[in-house]
Amino acid sequence: MDLGVTDRVRPLIEQVRRMVETEIAPLDAEYHEEVGKHPSGDRFLHTDRQIEILEALKSKAKERGLWNFWLTDSERGFGLTTVEYAYLAEEMGKVGIAAEVFNCNAPDTGNMEVLERYGTQAHKNLWLKPLLTGDIRSAYLMTEPDEASSDATNIALSAVKDGDEWVLNGEKWWASGAGDSRCKLYIVMARTDPDAHKHSRHSMFLIPADADGLEVLRPMHVFNTDDAPHGHMHIRFTNVRVPEADLVLGRGRGFEVAQGRLGPGRIHHCMRAIGQAERALELLCKRALSREAFGKKLADLGANHDIIANARMEIEMARLLCLKAAWMMDTQGTRAAQPWISKIKVIAPLMALKVVDEAMQVHGAAGISQDFPLASMWAHLRTLRFADGPDAVHRRQVARVELRKYTNAG
Amino acid sequence: MDLGVTDRVRPLIEQVRRMVETEIAPLDAEYHEEVGKHPSGDRFLHTDRQIEILEALKSKAKERGLWNFWLTDSERGFGLTTVEYAYLAEEMGKVGIAAEVFNCNAPDTGNMEVLERYGTQAHKNLWLKPLLTGDIRSAYLMTEPDEASSDATNIALSAVKDGDEWVLNGEKWWASGAGDSRCKLYIVMARTDPDAHKHSRHSMFLIPADADGLEVLRPMHVFNTDDAPHGHMHIRFTNVRVPEADLVLGRGRGFEVAQGRLGPGRIHHCMRAIGQAERALELLCKRALSREAFGKKLADLGANHDIIANARMEIEMARLLCLKAAWMMDTQGTRAAQPWISKIKVIAPLMALKVVDEAMQVHGAAGISQDFPLASMWAHLRTLRFADGPDAVHRRQVARVELRKYTNAG
Amino acid sequence: MDLGVTDRVRPLIEQVRRMVETEIAPLDAEYHEEVGKHPSGDRFLHTDRQIEILEALKSKAKERGLWNFWLTDSERGFGLTTVEYAYLAEEMGKVGIAAEVFNCNAPDTGNMEVLERYGTQAHKNLWLKPLLTGDIRSAYLMTEPDEASSDATNIALSAVKDGDEWVLNGEKWWASGAGDSRCKLYIVMARTDPDAHKHSRHSMFLIPADADGLEVLRPMHVFNTDDAPHGHMHIRFTNVRVPEADLVLGRGRGFEVAQGRLGPGRIHHCMRAIGQAERALELLCKRALSREAFGKKLADLGANHDIIANARMEIEMARLLCLKAAWMMDTQGTRAAQPWISKIKVIAPLMALKVVDEAMQVHGAAGISQDFPLASMWAHLRTLRFADGPDAVHRRQVARVELRKYTNAG
Amino acid sequence: MDLGVTDRVRPLIEQVRRMVETEIAPLDAEYHEEVGKHPSGDRFLHTDRQIEILEALKSKAKERGLWNFWLTDSERGFGLTTVEYAYLAEEMGKVGIAAEVFNCNAPDTGNMEVLERYGTQAHKNLWLKPLLTGDIRSAYLMTEPDEASSDATNIALSAVKDGDEWVLNGEKWWASGAGDSRCKLYIVMARTDPDAHKHSRHSMFLIPADADGLEVLRPMHVFNTDDAPHGHMHIRFTNVRVPEADLVLGRGRGFEVAQGRLGPGRIHHCMRAIGQAERALELLCKRALSREAFGKKLADLGANHDIIANARMEIEMARLLCLKAAWMMDTQGTRAAQPWISKIKVIAPLMALKVVDEAMQVHGAAGISQDFPLASMWAHLRTLRFADGPDAVHRRQVARVELRKYTNAG
Repeated sequence: MDLGVTDRVRPLIEQVRRMVETEIAPLDAEYHEEVGKHPSGDRFLHTDRQIEILEALKSKAKERGLWNFWLTDSERGFGLTTVEYAYLAEEMGKVGIAAEVFNCNAPDTGNMEVLERYGTQAHKNLWLKPLLTGDIRSAYLMTEPDEASSDATNIALSAVKDGDEWVLNGEKWWASGAGDSRCKLYIVMARTDPDAHKHSRHSMFLIPADADGLEVLRPMHVFNTDDAPHGHMHIRFTNVRVPEADLVLGRGRGFEVAQGRLGPGRIHHCMRAIGQAERALELLCKRALSREAFGKKLADLGANHDIIANARMEIEMARLLCLKAAWMMDTQGTRAAQPWISKIKVIAPLMALKVVDEAMQVHGAAGISQDFPLASMWAHLRTLRFADGPDAVHRRQVARVELRKYTNAG
Repeated sequence: MDLGVTDRVRPLIEQVRRMVETEIAPLDAEYHEEVGKHPSGDRFLHTDRQIEILEALKSKAKERGLWNFWLTDSERGFGLTTVEYAYLAEEMGKVGIAAEVFNCNAPDTGNMEVLERYGTQAHKNLWLKPLLTGDIRSAYLMTEPDEASSDATNIALSAVKDGDEWVLNGEKWWASGAGDSRCKLYIVMARTDPDAHKHSRHSMFLIPADADGLEVLRPMHVFNTDDAPHGHMHIRFTNVRVPEADLVLGRGRGFEVAQGRLGPGRIHHCMRAIGQAERALELLCKRALSREAFGKKLADLGANHDIIANARMEIEMARLLCLKAAWMMDTQGTRAAQPWISKIKVIAPLMALKVVDEAMQVHGAAGISQDFPLASMWAHLRTLRFADGPDAVHRRQVARVELRKYTNAG
Repeated sequence: MDLGVTDRVRPLIEQVRRMVETEIAPLDAEYHEEVGKHPSGDRFLHTDRQIEILEALKSKAKERGLWNFWLTDSERGFGLTTVEYAYLAEEMGKVGIAAEVFNCNAPDTGNMEVLERYGTQAHKNLWLKPLLTGDIRSAYLMTEPDEASSDATNIALSAVKDGDEWVLNGEKWWASGAGDSRCKLYIVMARTDPDAHKHSRHSMFLIPADADGLEVLRPMHVFNTDDAPHGHMHIRFTNVRVPEADLVLGRGRGFEVAQGRLGPGRIHHCMRAIGQAERALELLCKRALSREAFGKKLADLGANHDIIANARMEIEMARLLCLKAAWMMDTQGTRAAQPWISKIKVIAPLMALKVVDEAMQVHGAAGISQDFPLASMWAHLRTLRFADGPDAVHRRQVARVELRKYTNAG
Repeated sequence: MDLGVTDRVRPLIEQVRRMVETEIAPLDAEYHEEVGKHPSGDRFLHTDRQIEILEALKSKAKERGLWNFWLTDSERGFGLTTVEYAYLAEEMGKVGIAAEVFNCNAPDTGNMEVLERYGTQAHKNLWLKPLLTGDIRSAYLMTEPDEASSDATNIALSAVKDGDEWVLNGEKWWASGAGDSRCKLYIVMARTDPDAHKHSRHSMFLIPADADGLEVLRPMHVFNTDDAPHGHMHIRFTNVRVPEADLVLGRGRGFEVAQGRLGPGRIHHCMRAIGQAERALELLCKRALSREAFGKKLADLGANHDIIANARMEIEMARLLCLKAAWMMDTQGTRAAQPWISKIKVIAPLMALKVVDEAMQVHGAAGISQDFPLASMWAHLRTLRFADGPDAVHRRQVARVELRKYTNAG
């Protein structure tokens, strides 16, 4: 069970780390300050400067061959293992726009996985190609406003067959990335067979973002921000027509696709969360060493030694657990890795939230302000406690696996 | 030690609760949606509709005599005890704009306390009168960007005597309410005597918001929002001249004023935090009863019974502790109440954050969106863990009092 | 809602506190060291010295009128309120044998409540009288080895009518106090009507400890100690015959008796737990001030300030909650007080365990040894998390009350 | 960084697991019930049956070559890595006497490490040989009653040179294993050079348990048990004379020896703690599946799914962290591994205590009784939070390493 950095990936990690620190981080703040400055007033349009920042960085990354690392266990790209990718994802998690610079950002990576694994050649030509080059973006439409989507069998957006087309009606929300004007593809889970077995009721559709009948109602806010220009959109479907050919993998197999997509996606989120925790701990320590109160460095006051030690210990444990989940995925497949993914999906965001929260506290009011990335990190991490399944559902999964050890035998 | 609802305050509580629920809550969302819609594009200007909402509600409150409850232990106003006021503050805490409707909002209440207790008759005529009628607003400028303000002796904004004027230079930030165009008065703590004993170095000044040399640099963000039109402003002082007469209570007595101000202010914050926790628990229960997953109500899934029970128990304990701190203030004075205020200042925000966080989790992604007040409540409550002293400083105070029991004797 | 110390109870508290500190505490260690020294080798027989210690202290208490405080809301005794008693119980909780010295120890107080409230005159003459004078002791037999007794409807010890006698068969365990040779009375819950409604299946019996067919199988251990000579006994019933007249209150009313008994009993346990937490915090502070490491007092190292402050805050909150539950009992009756009793039954033992655990940690290995009372306190407090209902059942009760607010309306 | 089970160790793990489950566990309870039954009444003498149980099991283990696994990175024995040993230690941790059966029990393993690494040939012949064969036992005397031994520089037992002998005076306590009549060797840290640098003040001595001037004052109790016949003894030194030749490694090098000894010892404790947590979780699940309340299995009530899932997640993380610490030791030496050992020393006992506590709670009162091993496990694990350094000291170490990253650079 080798969870370490391989010789193959070590130089990549170094390159990515250096580029994140020295080239991306300095521009990340500027990128975010540009939000809302498009002359049209439309917050979801990139400013010229934003485009310039992004494209210049992407070009550099591509030139250096630092691109599409996420495509694990594949002939295309680097053919990295998930364990190897984990170390890279951690570095990319440290700064907001870094993942996109290397074409490794959610939800595109998950969406590309879907196309790579389950798409037809036509799907690949039309959608995967420009996604792999970073020319377009995509969104994944799963969650719905009217259902407890923690139970995916609740998903209710209706798809009815009409000739060789499907007609979709209903609403989706939290379509992350759908605010981006470069977003051209929606991957949509809809209920095609309401009376089938609960795991065979749904199918997965590929729909152009400009299809007739699609209406973006509003951006959902994440702790008071609209996360423009990325956006988490609330979208209405009114008689949206999709050809049979754009149903992925087959009717009633929506769940299978969703499961196949979510496994790696969840791990990647967790890896990036660990990167954020590392960055927060670094900020915490630096602040604690640079400010004084009551005649002492903050670092030496109160429970700060314990807080720092606990943060370090929890980061290390979460990283090791994440690496083990990745290793399970690499060596024993998604299904066997599932309970490990559930574990890390609970642990990593909780851990990172705690570290970021402690870092905010050490910074005082500055910590929640625009002067530090901590509040944004916290808000983003907080969404991970429901995105791709809330903690409670993952804990339930882990408990069931545990109890089964003693019931199957009987 | 009567911590209960008195006969005198019971009907007031009922009236306030009803007005908050039926008249204020329905307009609160609209008020907040208006933010940023001023034709000038200036987010810190109220729209006509915002003014209309606020003034209509304030007029109703005034007519009904539901006004200025906070003025405890005083001949003016109701002469309520702090314990009695606690029950009212809790109700007002449940909805964003409610406290202002009853002229009981921070930082104005604390600032009015300063003027009432320590101001000259001239100060009262000029500033207290219009504050008591709700015609102007005020801000309190304490924290500074370049110092760990958790140790108030660090405060460094310089005031130098020049004739019978003081000349102030430096920066303050997190001047809450200073964004509001109705804000006319700044109460400012400055360092007048750097070489005096650490508790005699500072003095407190009254400064008109439009004084020469004041420059509002920017609004500080609270978890990505500028909290307009209230605002938490970063302000630069360049040779701001203040007449000797506008120094409150006396040179070198800034600390005394700050302590006198902070005691009740901290309790009021805690009371309102308890109201927010109550509202969050109500939202949690309602959501948990109205949604289903895996064939059961969310309320009956996972650890939700335990989560609900823990929330209820922690709210009750925090409320009782808060009432005891209020009772100490009423019966034994601010100094004796100090360690009790430190206790509740640590406990109430932490408790409320926990309840709100659980409520967000039960709501799924909706819980952090604009569709529910939970994310705003969380962000606001999070600031209370440093505002008026960070948790660590209050814990330190409590520990010192405890240890002194065994060292003084020896 | 007066939760304070009344003028009536203040001098009693002072007398009890002084007697506990100066007269009982110094003998408590000696009393416990005597365990196992009876010449017969029987650990459950008191040594002469133990009897001497106990009886001398009891006589003093009786002479001073410090006796049977627990009999609240009654014409006999002091007629204290539960709130008043709470302050006394806290003092008595601080030292192991103190409660018995004042005839206020469990399970006798609960058993006396049963006899006082529900007993016939004959029961009172035979059993209540010598219990009130402290001449005999009693036990309460509820829990059973073969059932999850957290659900009291599971209780299965069989009682079958035979003429005007009942014949009991089955097993009980954790009969606390039944090891004591002075224990003469067992109050026993048995299932008389297995087919009745689940709350009417059981009846409560008074049975002399020397009745035929009773066999003490063994003492149950509490963290490796048999708690001799008090003991928590495992008892077998083989055709134990009980006359109809010794069934309390009426057939099928066992639950009603149990509920009436448990309310005050649970509060008393919690009050004493708070006393133990206070004593533990005192020990913690004294140790932390008296030892040094790395050139500093332990008190000033690591997170100890935070640990002390948290302990103080949690003790205060638990005490206030306990007083509120007592006040509910006094003013609104056992039924209305029930959810409050559930709350405090969860909170007080958890809080006290935490404080004792921190105190042990500050003492190092000494803290878990015979040189300090902390380990015994911890072990005893740990039992309270299941005695009279486990935490989970009480949390469930609190949650149901909370959720009912929103379902009853609908 | 291979943290997995190697092919070499896999069959050993299987054999050890099977022997623990099928041969040792069934006799462990009987062994413990024999305590105190020696005809002399001396609890610290093994009964014939105890000797019989132990020796029969030890012989079987030896015959099968399952012996002295702990001797890592050595030509003697198996030459296992620490990582490999970790998996074995976990299995041995599950049952009380198992570690001794395989001659892998504390404190003997640590003491043998000292002799192996730092002893002279004479020391090895006299002491290491019979320890390796399991013919004698040993104790390690470090902690003292009058000093905060968390700071090892406080250690004060005096050793004064007199000719070519040292004369030792003072007291040690918590000499674990010194109660055992087979214990023949004490390894003792004493202060030889009070005025030297704080890390050069102490030296390490080998002293026969029957040396003149040694007096065992009493067994220290661990949560009310004397842990006979192993025992944790309080020992007085009165002019105990030790020849210069029995000073290990050299005068003033006591710290170096202690550090060398503690590294692996701490990891082994943690590995066994993880085994105990696994066993507790197994007991928890089995109980939760076998008992019902309120018409449901306990497993499906309250927060039990979450409790089980959290236990599983925390066990996995602690194991991975422990394996990483072992791997650091194997690949980069004790010094580099030190912060990792500190981490796991904090984490593993806390985690195991939590799991055992939850398991006790699910068992109700039975969980703290002699019917289950949980209370003994808890008491033993609780000592690990101070043994070999309290949590606070280890957290302090971790924090200092963390902060140094940012101060060294400056």
